[in-house]
Amino acid sequence: MNGPIPRKILIIGGGFAGLACARRLANDSRFEITLVDRTNHHLFQPLLYQVATASLAAPDIARSIRQILSKARNVTVLMDEITGLDPAGKTATGATGTIYPFDTMILAAGARTGYFGHDEWAEHTFSLKSLAEAQTLRRTVLANLEQAELITDPVERKRLMTVAIVGGGPTGVELAGAFADLIHRSMKADFRRIDTSKLRVILIEGSDRILEVYDENQSAYAKQRLTEQGVEVWTGKRVDNITPGKLHFTSGEELESAAIIWAAGVAANPLTKALGVPTDRGGRVTPEPDLTVPGHPDIFVAGDLVGMKDADGKMVPGVAPAASQMGKYIAGLLRDEARYAGNPGARPVRAGFRYFDKGLMAIIGKNHAVVKAGHLKMQGVMAWLAWLFIHILFLVGFRNKLSVLLGWAFAYIRDNPSARVIVNTPPARKAS
Amino acid sequence: MNGPIPRKILIIGGGFAGLACARRLANDSRFEITLVDRTNHHLFQPLLYQVATASLAAPDIARSIRQILSKARNVTVLMDEITGLDPAGKTATGATGTIYPFDTMILAAGARTGYFGHDEWAEHTFSLKSLAEAQTLRRTVLANLEQAELITDPVERKRLMTVAIVGGGPTGVELAGAFADLIHRSMKADFRRIDTSKLRVILIEGSDRILEVYDENQSAYAKQRLTEQGVEVWTGKRVDNITPGKLHFTSGEELESAAIIWAAGVAANPLTKALGVPTDRGGRVTPEPDLTVPGHPDIFVAGDLVGMKDADGKMVPGVAPAASQMGKYIAGLLRDEARYAGNPGARPVRAGFRYFDKGLMAIIGKNHAVVKAGHLKMQGVMAWLAWLFIHILFLVGFRNKLSVLLGWAFAYIRDNPSARVIVNTPPARKAS
Repeated sequence: MNGPIPRKILIIGGGFAGLACARRLANDSRFEITLVDRTNHHLFQPLLYQVATASLAAPDIARSIRQILSKARNVTVLMDEITGLDPAGKTATGATGTIYPFDTMILAAGARTGYFGHDEWAEHTFSLKSLAEAQTLRRTVLANLEQAELITDPVERKRLMTVAIVGGGPTGVELAGAFADLIHRSMKADFRRIDTSKLRVILIEGSDRILEVYDENQSAYAKQRLTEQGVEVWTGKRVDNITPGKLHFTSGEELESAAIIWAAGVAANPLTKALGVPTDRGGRVTPEPDLTVPGHPDIFVAGDLVGMKDADGKMVPGVAPAASQMGKYIAGLLRDEARYAGNPGARPVRAGFRYFDKGLMAIIGKNHAVVKAGHLKMQGVMAWLAWLFIHILFLVGFRNKLSVLLGWAFAYIRDNPSARVIVNTPPARKAS
Repeated sequence: MNGPIPRKILIIGGGFAGLACARRLANDSRFEITLVDRTNHHLFQPLLYQVATASLAAPDIARSIRQILSKARNVTVLMDEITGLDPAGKTATGATGTIYPFDTMILAAGARTGYFGHDEWAEHTFSLKSLAEAQTLRRTVLANLEQAELITDPVERKRLMTVAIVGGGPTGVELAGAFADLIHRSMKADFRRIDTSKLRVILIEGSDRILEVYDENQSAYAKQRLTEQGVEVWTGKRVDNITPGKLHFTSGEELESAAIIWAAGVAANPLTKALGVPTDRGGRVTPEPDLTVPGHPDIFVAGDLVGMKDADGKMVPGVAPAASQMGKYIAGLLRDEARYAGNPGARPVRAGFRYFDKGLMAIIGKNHAVVKAGHLKMQGVMAWLAWLFIHILFLVGFRNKLSVLLGWAFAYIRDNPSARVIVNTPPARKAS
């Protein structure tokens, strides 16, 4: 039944979508798969904020893609950044100049930080989409505290002791809570000259409440918990401009901070523009119900760069379970289609992609969370336990599961995370 | 009995010597201690090669110095690099411009890589004295393999698949064994285009045997084990010059490698030169028997920058136990002396520092080692178990002890270390 020549599948991106698709097609000789990613690792993004806040080490939440797929003999993993697409010619081009021909392409290159048309703000802010960014953020906040302990100038010290987080979504909330824990609890006895209780963690949200996709009472709960932990939650505060070390608000106010974190938006990988179809404000593609790009039945999109509505008319969120479901859906479609190998243009009639919503969770500080799953709404310690359980479940397959769990157990029991290490010492600055 | 004004103790370096000294003086109100280190962490150097070879994560073997000393209320930890000393004026100066006055100074700034007068070789080689260097080395070797999988040019591929280690001492031997394990065992199923069995790990030693400080039969054993693991051991091969990507030997031969690792020498921190006393070829100071600098009874040296002989007439080796013993010895001396606070010049008569030799160990590959402790000489799996036991003992106090142990257990059972992550993707190069 099978055609003698395997179908060349090109998967761009080794995130949840690309990896799920490759795994489902593993060792199926009808497919010859090339997976290209600009890093060498699959990243468990939901825990990235814990690397940034010195609770986990980078390898705890990442794993070599070729290691994960080492037994998938029909998958070749290559590290390269795809910079060009030729949908008509059916090739992609890498930053190394390599040309990748394909019969079918799955574009799952994910999202990056979005600045709403103010890309110049990237220079003056930190963001959190990669391990390198998480480590840079950790290094900066820790080094700022070291610098504050060293110097005597009170104005500069205050600037160094201010962490400003722009964006009150899950990432901003999780970062704020974890930084407050790190500084106000774990590190509180570590300094002699500075008073860490004076360190400010400020969470800034333009709309009138944080965690907007949750219920109003959950937003209020999150705000109260964060405040109890020592986070200043500023709502209804819109950022007008960002200059080096300074936030400018539409109200005319300003805030100086040596660590401005931008967690206010994401945008799809700009490769979507090369597809020649309209993209939405976030650069996302609205695919056909079967996740193919309109007009290109052999090009699929999956994961964070998909902008589509689910059965209820709500946008499918850019979360790991959605990406993973899309990857599996596409793999299923390709396997079905492969049965019609003698007639390559044919594709079996098949239902479109349907998102199965497992719910949303955001952790607040050390041991509280808010959960929203369908009609179920929870907040507090029980919600946190649910979060912990689900994340541990997700980490199955990650060999570092146990070490993550132990890291948490240590941190929880002894209030003392161990990843508080500045690896690349920034160049010494003149003390004032 | 105690004087009302505490003695200002300046400790330069938070390695084994400086930290042991600070811990022994902790919460003794007769001392006001400032510990300055250019990093924020104490590093468990004996396991640094495991970070370089992707078996352990950086935070597994490092810990925040201020965290270790958080309960020592009389110790202020500052992150700064000391760049100048004024022994007569009793001050040190940091790279930040900060002046550190002292009554007593303990110079324990450790060693760095030494190039025997060829500092220009540093540019073309990798070394292994810090976490940043270990991560750079890991990233380079992993990225070279990624690049080799991507390209097709056989000459460049060969260069990328050659790891050359110069120096057959313990560091070189441990690195060679661990790289061979990583590439020939753990990663052997991970690639599709390159044949990892063709990857060369070459250990280069100028004298006629590796591990010279061990017995001859131990050197022969180590060479045989490494060879069985797939390491090429080249003895009697002297490096004449190093140019970018190329080793030149005195024999006229050349070797091309995209990862040349220099593990052939150490040199004391150049601060020793500011003491105004003679230093040996490695920049080390020969102190008085009580570890003070000749002519400066209030300046001590400790750790790797000390060049002194023990009771048997042999040089005290630059190893963690020796450094730790020196730090404790100095702390004891200072506490004794503090009893004579009314008469600051006086110092009780006291025996000089004596090194208690606990033996030497070098690990070879996954589960073999050579041990030399006094008359006891061991090699093989039993020696490895001894090594494991001693390192675990040493890690007591390191909170990550259990996670290190689990990391090893995983790696050992499943042949599959999890730290194989390239965090900072190097800029893409043109594929040939």
